[in-house]
Amino acid sequence: MSLTVIGSMALDSIETPFGKKKDILGGSATYASVSASFFSAVDIISVVGTDFPKKYLSMLKKRNIGISGIEIKEGKTFRWKARYLDMNCAETLDTRLNVFEGFRPECSGRTAGKNDLLLANIDPELQGWIFERMKPKGIVACDTMNLWITHKKKALEKLLKKVDIFLLNDAEARQLSGEKNLFEAARYIHSKGAKMIVIKKGEHGALCFSPKLKFIVPAYLLEEVVDPTGAGDTFAGGMIGYLSAHKKIDDKILRRSLVYGSILASFAVEEFSADSLAKVGKKAIDKRFRRFGQLTKHFI
Amino acid sequence: MSLTVIGSMALDSIETPFGKKKDILGGSATYASVSASFFSAVDIISVVGTDFPKKYLSMLKKRNIGISGIEIKEGKTFRWKARYLDMNCAETLDTRLNVFEGFRPECSGRTAGKNDLLLANIDPELQGWIFERMKPKGIVACDTMNLWITHKKKALEKLLKKVDIFLLNDAEARQLSGEKNLFEAARYIHSKGAKMIVIKKGEHGALCFSPKLKFIVPAYLLEEVVDPTGAGDTFAGGMIGYLSAHKKIDDKILRRSLVYGSILASFAVEEFSADSLAKVGKKAIDKRFRRFGQLTKHFI
Repeated sequence: MSLTVIGSMALDSIETPFGKKKDILGGSATYASVSASFFSAVDIISVVGTDFPKKYLSMLKKRNIGISGIEIKEGKTFRWKARYLDMNCAETLDTRLNVFEGFRPECSGRTAGKNDLLLANIDPELQGWIFERMKPKGIVACDTMNLWITHKKKALEKLLKKVDIFLLNDAEARQLSGEKNLFEAARYIHSKGAKMIVIKKGEHGALCFSPKLKFIVPAYLLEEVVDPTGAGDTFAGGMIGYLSAHKKIDDKILRRSLVYGSILASFAVEEFSADSLAKVGKKAIDKRFRRFGQLTKHFI
Repeated sequence: MSLTVIGSMALDSIETPFGKKKDILGGSATYASVSASFFSAVDIISVVGTDFPKKYLSMLKKRNIGISGIEIKEGKTFRWKARYLDMNCAETLDTRLNVFEGFRPECSGRTAGKNDLLLANIDPELQGWIFERMKPKGIVACDTMNLWITHKKKALEKLLKKVDIFLLNDAEARQLSGEKNLFEAARYIHSKGAKMIVIKKGEHGALCFSPKLKFIVPAYLLEEVVDPTGAGDTFAGGMIGYLSAHKKIDDKILRRSLVYGSILASFAVEEFSADSLAKVGKKAIDKRFRRFGQLTKHFI
């Protein structure tokens, strides 16, 4: 099956201890699509401004990502400026929605309803609006962030009823549920409707609940993290892209999908920008997958 | 082979969100010995005061832990008083070394030199002093804590030359090496002489380096953590006890030893005191070991 990814496309200006970059390729849909494209056919639905570099559209096309759903709107592309003093925490310096403000994509007539759907991290009201129009028949996965839990909790919880796989990080799971313990947090999220919950723990891996704990995936430990931007989006894209590539999803495929999500995220944080992620080779991904297997073999 | 464990025996007074306990069984040698005793014959070398409850000595004996190396000295047993507001960080309220002050065990004549040796967390000067007298022929493992890195770094680094397996947590590895990255930290510790480095990450599992990253063990995720006291000591005891039970240590046994360390630590933190740990059944341990296998199977 194919995967439709809906989310933001952005030009990021990022500062980390490893450097300072201006207007590099970012956005939740961008990272997620590039990541998913290593496994599955992907269509992206998003919006950019007329200032959006054509080379990035070419890059997406080259990766076999359908870009006909990217609206090019008069104005400036969504911009995000952030700094990481601590690699675990982005400090947002400036957010300019620009053409993303009030974005309501044309998607009712699309064939995307046949596809699996990844609602990458954007305003849950928009995620819900899109869901209603797409009427997806495949897997529906949804990612979010702390901002929406703080300001749009109601819309997010309404959306959870429709979601097969809900991804969020450990701090967000605690924030959303009001529970410190992650088992309790997963139970709360499950009670709101999400069938499966993937709790991302950054450098400490991820957990999969439904609502019982199904399995634990440690992170691929890195010598160097250059820019954490997009790690969560990349994880979601890699995981759902891998699932989308399989007709029948059994326990084995599901577990592998989380490992691939983790592996793709490990590549994403080693360089700046989603453009760098696109340059990773399939061979390097498979090599890291096998290395991951060696590192986590416990002989039980 | 048998295992000799040297470290502290204490009466702890602990406050956590789950309760307040006075004079419960604690100490690095106690937790480590009880944990190791599920796998291997253990001898403990330590000191207690005349106020030390006999029932605890009986418990150790019942677990087949040799207690002839426990000196009973006129005076009071070592006492530690702490509070956990955050379960990841003990706040020490009071430390009374009592009979542990200036403790120099009689160990030159012991047969323990034939055994494997676990230098559980105590002053590295005392660990070094004991090492010299024991002249151990088996595996030598050593655990430590932040206090000694701050005040006795020189003694600790001198000891590292003699150590096969050095255990410490991630914050301590960073503190000792001055390196934020754990690969760098492991290389530093290896350059000081430790052949294998186990970095414990509490609820996030453990890493094994030599000095390259050999493997990753996630923690056994718990519904409830009641008292984190002794988790690191229990991990060390379980790991080294398991190794000590095997004539030939290959990659498989080594990996399993870390998993057993992690499993034993998961039991330790579910209740107050090392006395509770002693009540865990071998069947429950094996069950959790198998469950760990299910949770961490990735089909790679």
